[in-house]
Amino acid sequence: MDITVRQIEWYDLNNQDFWDCLRALTVAPTLLMPDAAMIHLRRETYWTLVAELGERLVGTLTLIIEPKFTHGGSLVGHIEDVAVHPDFQKQGVGSKLLIRAIALAKEAKCYKLILDCAEEVAPFYEKHDFRRHNLGLRLDVK
Amino acid sequence: MDITVRQIEWYDLNNQDFWDCLRALTVAPTLLMPDAAMIHLRRETYWTLVAELGERLVGTLTLIIEPKFTHGGSLVGHIEDVAVHPDFQKQGVGSKLLIRAIALAKEAKCYKLILDCAEEVAPFYEKHDFRRHNLGLRLDVK
Repeated sequence: MDITVRQIEWYDLNNQDFWDCLRALTVAPTLLMPDAAMIHLRRETYWTLVAELGERLVGTLTLIIEPKFTHGGSLVGHIEDVAVHPDFQKQGVGSKLLIRAIALAKEAKCYKLILDCAEEVAPFYEKHDFRRHNLGLRLDVK
Repeated sequence: MDITVRQIEWYDLNNQDFWDCLRALTVAPTLLMPDAAMIHLRRETYWTLVAELGERLVGTLTLIIEPKFTHGGSLVGHIEDVAVHPDFQKQGVGSKLLIRAIALAKEAKCYKLILDCAEEVAPFYEKHDFRRHNLGLRLDVK
């Protein structure tokens, strides 16, 4: 069976697989009608993709398309929350999602794609021609 | 004179100082009516701040507020394009902007703020309690 990638739909939020993908990444309680979904499903700034394998939802990725004041008003794509279902890891799901996100960024005419990741997953992105460029800094807001 | 920080207004786009700030950071040709402005001035996802010193616009910063499907639908703030006018650097403009952005992120109930930066400017953010967390990767989209 082939992995296919499409944009998220409302009904995906009722699919336990979707939340299990995100839980492979971080804390992700199921939300019945998350505020987040409202804006993600508007498909302007946020483009959330899901990967399917047969009946299963096996992965997800979010692309934020940010219009800049710099670079002549060009767009920058931010890759966020690349998550693969724990039962379907190491099968190319992440690559399929990333390749689609890169294609979407090209179509949208982004001049660059950026992301933050831990050292141990950097080789995955480097395989897809990303290069180490900057430091990723964080402040926990309390 | 005190540095004050406020949200961007339409007329700031006609202020050469604004573009000179951004040019201290990267390529930033003046745009008379940039598409970017349309969404930035809507003040939903994008919060662009400007710093003023008397009659001059001396700095700018953009905060992207991203709703997550993870973390119970919580928000993450992304700090982008922190830029200080070349004639007003090393006078605390960047700190004023960053402190306001952190306050906005708290008000919005973001659970974290993240940013990418070059090694040489990391100490500025570390002074404001940011910590090195991840790698920043980049793909130039052609």
